Amino acid sequence: MTKVRIFVTYKQSVFDPQGETIKDAIHTLGHDEVKDVQVGKFFDVTVEGTGKVVEKTIEEIADQLLVNFNMETYKYQVMEED
Amino acid sequence: MTKVRIFVTYKQSVFDPQGETIKDAIHTLGHDEVKDVQVGKFFDVTVEGTGKVVEKTIEEIADQLLVNFNMETYKYQVMEED
Repeated sequence: MTKVRIFVTYKQSVFDPQGETIKDAIHTLGHDEVKDVQVGKFFDVTVEGTGKVVEKTIEEIADQLLVNFNMETYKYQVMEED
Repeated sequence: MTKVRIFVTYKQSVFDPQGETIKDAIHTLGHDEVKDVQVGKFFDVTVEGTGKVVEKTIEEIADQLLVNFNMETYKYQVMEED
């Protein structure tokens, strides 16, 4: 079993309105030391198998389901493998 | 400046309907090797300062804004510090 965390973020070129709104709200709370906020989502996925087999699964589900490649990009990180 | 990633997830005791729905969709794609999916969000926050000062800011904005402690919990990780 392998536990993988897939991080999905907006592409650099895409404006992140939620991040801007949260930054403004943080400033309203008085935390002007916060200079930037960006929002993303992540998926903790448990996959049967290890190594290349898992990599293939992750890439396929990212391509076919989890990521909107028009606006988003992704990275993933193996959290646990046994 | 310190870059911190704040991870917000549902508490263990809270059902994650989005994760279940995504798992079902992944199975529909034929990836039965995927056994579990949990969904979370993260905030990449850039804060002026370092160390304890930043920790205090992170804890305050999590408490006051980012996290719904009824259903959610959070962790954070320093990504860059200079």
